[in-house]
Amino acid sequence: MKARLDTQWIVGFVDGQGCFHGEWRSQNKMGHGFQVFPEFTIFCHKKDRQILYRVKNFFRCGVIRHVKDDAWCYRIQDQKHLRNILIPFFEKHPLKTKKQQDFLKFRKIILLSTTHSDEERFEPIQTIQKTMERELKE
Amino acid sequence: MKARLDTQWIVGFVDGQGCFHGEWRSQNKMGHGFQVFPEFTIFCHKKDRQILYRVKNFFRCGVIRHVKDDAWCYRIQDQKHLRNILIPFFEKHPLKTKKQQDFLKFRKIILLSTTHSDEERFEPIQTIQKTMERELKE
Repeated sequence: MKARLDTQWIVGFVDGQGCFHGEWRSQNKMGHGFQVFPEFTIFCHKKDRQILYRVKNFFRCGVIRHVKDDAWCYRIQDQKHLRNILIPFFEKHPLKTKKQQDFLKFRKIILLSTTHSDEERFEPIQTIQKTMERELKE
Repeated sequence: MKARLDTQWIVGFVDGQGCFHGEWRSQNKMGHGFQVFPEFTIFCHKKDRQILYRVKNFFRCGVIRHVKDDAWCYRIQDQKHLRNILIPFFEKHPLKTKKQQDFLKFRKIILLSTTHSDEERFEPIQTIQKTMERELKE
């Protein structure tokens, strides 16, 4: 079995390939407006999917999926895992690129979930997303 | 001034964003067939170009260029820098993805340059490139 990946290697790889992402979907059937789905993903070419298993082994959570064609993906969607594993990791080991700012906003969304309903999170998430879009255009 | 980047962060970031690349161009004006141009590059969005300066500071060689639109690039083309700085670094700190195989082929091309002319390198480079293209299709 291969050695556990180095902490700083994980930070560098996520600075390059990681994505902190959130979306909300209308939940008409459930009788209320929105449900929030934050997720952390790393996409790669199929030839590199083995590294995704090593990342999964590092965080001890998440799933690996074939996305389509040659694209594979490592994903953490479970809010408990995001809050208790991913966020403390990147708090302790900050990203070096501007992705750090994405992480801080993502973190804010996750932490809001402990005190706010999805409905209440909708507005702050919209504000955060608008900031991220504006920064991308700058 | 920001701290020097961590060695394993560099390896992780290059596993995600780095590219070992080579091309040959016909050199009719020079009266011989081909000249070989191996290069190492890291591309990023303009919002992250500051990290390229830190990578440059880490390797103490290379140049940073605006490519086009929002794309920026760190590049090492100087064969001496590739041979004496980049190659020993990745020999000592192997990449974790399949990019390691690209590196090993790239290394072979660079090292051939110490004993072979560009003309003599053309055939082995073609073989290496074909292998890389085949692997990408697999």
